[in-house]
Amino acid sequence: MIYVTRRVTFSASHRLFNPRLSDKENEELFDKCANRNGHGHNYIMEVTVVGEPQEHTGYVVDLKTLKEILRQEIVDKVDHRHLNEDVDFLKGIIPTAENIAKVFWRILQPKIPDGKLFSIRLHETENNVVEYRGE
Amino acid sequence: MIYVTRRVTFSASHRLFNPRLSDKENEELFDKCANRNGHGHNYIMEVTVVGEPQEHTGYVVDLKTLKEILRQEIVDKVDHRHLNEDVDFLKGIIPTAENIAKVFWRILQPKIPDGKLFSIRLHETENNVVEYRGE
Amino acid sequence: MIYVTRRVTFSASHRLFNPRLSDKENEELFDKCANRNGHGHNYIMEVTVVGEPQEHTGYVVDLKTLKEILRQEIVDKVDHRHLNEDVDFLKGIIPTAENIAKVFWRILQPKIPDGKLFSIRLHETENNVVEYRGE
Amino acid sequence: MIYVTRRVTFSASHRLFNPRLSDKENEELFDKCANRNGHGHNYIMEVTVVGEPQEHTGYVVDLKTLKEILRQEIVDKVDHRHLNEDVDFLKGIIPTAENIAKVFWRILQPKIPDGKLFSIRLHETENNVVEYRGE
Amino acid sequence: MIYVTRRVTFSASHRLFNPRLSDKENEELFDKCANRNGHGHNYIMEVTVVGEPQEHTGYVVDLKTLKEILRQEIVDKVDHRHLNEDVDFLKGIIPTAENIAKVFWRILQPKIPDGKLFSIRLHETENNVVEYRGE
Amino acid sequence: MIYVTRRVTFSASHRLFNPRLSDKENEELFDKCANRNGHGHNYIMEVTVVGEPQEHTGYVVDLKTLKEILRQEIVDKVDHRHLNEDVDFLKGIIPTAENIAKVFWRILQPKIPDGKLFSIRLHETENNVVEYRGE
Repeated sequence: MIYVTRRVTFSASHRLFNPRLSDKENEELFDKCANRNGHGHNYIMEVTVVGEPQEHTGYVVDLKTLKEILRQEIVDKVDHRHLNEDVDFLKGIIPTAENIAKVFWRILQPKIPDGKLFSIRLHETENNVVEYRGE
Repeated sequence: MIYVTRRVTFSASHRLFNPRLSDKENEELFDKCANRNGHGHNYIMEVTVVGEPQEHTGYVVDLKTLKEILRQEIVDKVDHRHLNEDVDFLKGIIPTAENIAKVFWRILQPKIPDGKLFSIRLHETENNVVEYRGE
Repeated sequence: MIYVTRRVTFSASHRLFNPRLSDKENEELFDKCANRNGHGHNYIMEVTVVGEPQEHTGYVVDLKTLKEILRQEIVDKVDHRHLNEDVDFLKGIIPTAENIAKVFWRILQPKIPDGKLFSIRLHETENNVVEYRGE
Repeated sequence: MIYVTRRVTFSASHRLFNPRLSDKENEELFDKCANRNGHGHNYIMEVTVVGEPQEHTGYVVDLKTLKEILRQEIVDKVDHRHLNEDVDFLKGIIPTAENIAKVFWRILQPKIPDGKLFSIRLHETENNVVEYRGE
Repeated sequence: MIYVTRRVTFSASHRLFNPRLSDKENEELFDKCANRNGHGHNYIMEVTVVGEPQEHTGYVVDLKTLKEILRQEIVDKVDHRHLNEDVDFLKGIIPTAENIAKVFWRILQPKIPDGKLFSIRLHETENNVVEYRGE
Repeated sequence: MIYVTRRVTFSASHRLFNPRLSDKENEELFDKCANRNGHGHNYIMEVTVVGEPQEHTGYVVDLKTLKEILRQEIVDKVDHRHLNEDVDFLKGIIPTAENIAKVFWRILQPKIPDGKLFSIRLHETENNVVEYRGE
């Protein structure tokens, strides 16, 4: 069993805001992350797939294929977008790194061509990272 | 003469858009950076001050003081903000890294307490950086 | 279950030295790390908390709160200090990264406000890292 | 139980190529990685050992000793070499990061002086990493 | 005047070898870099263009255009190649970072679409970097 | 003319303290950096040499030789030491990064075997860097 990780990046804006709460409550919960016009990040996503290397290639999964899937399914849809406004699969979700990682898992898990999805790590800043392992 | 650099970070959103041009022209010029709802970055700013170390401290400039100035004059005003909408000193400016760096210079240059401002580097992503030296 | 990690840094000095051994034995065990006047590092600490994101916030734990706890409980007490001399909770302990991580765990584990502590990683240099998971 | 990680680097060239397949099949499988004259990487290897810190040292394993073992057993044999041509223990293996990590494990696992080997991570580029845990 | 830098990466192998010298002399001069079968690196190239931001865009140079030029002129020709064997414009040159940077300058200098080329930095490893400014 | 940079690291402790001032004045000037028992850093030093690549090697300066000089003249003398107490050539100097860089220049400038010394950059933390160019 080998864990294979591919790193990709995207730049997006978002706003942390719970529409069922008042503006004042949102500000108390989310502080400057609740700023009405949003703010943004250079996100780093690390996708880890686990499996046995195949004998004729020595690959668990072809990283060119995985990279292309990450591009089509995720990066093309979130890069240079506003995560609350522009991304269908994030509608109705407070776009914390935690929630985004869980949605990305749900999208990517059935698309992994070889091996199986083990983990999605999402870096929001150089100091804040979340990881979801489907548990 | 010693060049002393302090690095600070902030997370903001922006939209590249020239209001004197049509939507179509903006899209041609700025591509996905013109996305109506904006996108965002973790900016890294490196501010370099040049001068002689003072004899009684060995400092060109006290970095605690410089850090506090950067916080008050820049970071508190741009961090977790939309650069086109929320920042007075960026109003009417296309917020490319180039233009932002020039505005930051104009603000910081008279505030440097010792030595003098030599350079402002602004990293927009891990692949794109600009530097302004007041020339 | 999401793993949320906050990264903080501090700069400290230490000396690896076992007072129950002779100077010669200390030098053999710890080599240049036993230098009488100590040496120092820019430590990086990564604290990982695991839990379910809360529905009304999308957070496992509010990172502003966690950051404040890390500052009060750890960083304010070790930053710009000599770990053998100046830190009450490290008295009588050989301050290897291993031992420091275990002490930090004991201090932080009861203070985590939401979720529970999963791991403490401590980078002593860019080449040396330890991790403690309370096992 | 503490996980202790040592990071080392080496620069090597390789070619991904399965001698039991035709040139055309190799090109389809490995694309530009099959380039006849090879290509290369700055590999980063992170070796993690797990164990209890020893009471008289506070170390799980002396990192100076571990570093020396990594140098003798691995780095001296692969650094500035062609992994397909110059390295005895990689003969007959397609040198993907997955396969290299497994071979490194087999070599290092019996040599760890204290604690036991937990993981080998091998970074091929800043975007591609594999990890093997002996499973 | 703003200095705008774009960072790109490529992975290649090379051999440091002067064909006018004996094998023994080559080994003395280039040590393990003279290894007959070559070795390799993940190169990082930083290309800096200097100029005035254009009024209607706020750009010195459109980084999408610059990135495409770097891809066509350099990256597509050196990535996953053997620099001594596979690259026409490096034929007959000892492929040290110094010499490669000078050749890249000669190729890129006439292709910069706006502003003018100021510097090419080439990182061979995390510890070794060269910079050429056309002087 | 090519600028060639070699990066080395060392871990040391220091105390910022001017013996001609009172304890109270030192604390006001240097704050927590004046801590009596010192603190420490993982310093990163980048040494840049400028010159023409030599025709028979393509090197401005052999980096193996430069690395060995940096080790002998600097790293062996400051690594795992207390900069105020243990280092002859820093005696009587307030060991700010600025002052250290100037002393390193004075030591290294006459030892550069080919090309000439252009710059010494010294990173004290990931946020604080100084550079000296002999001006």
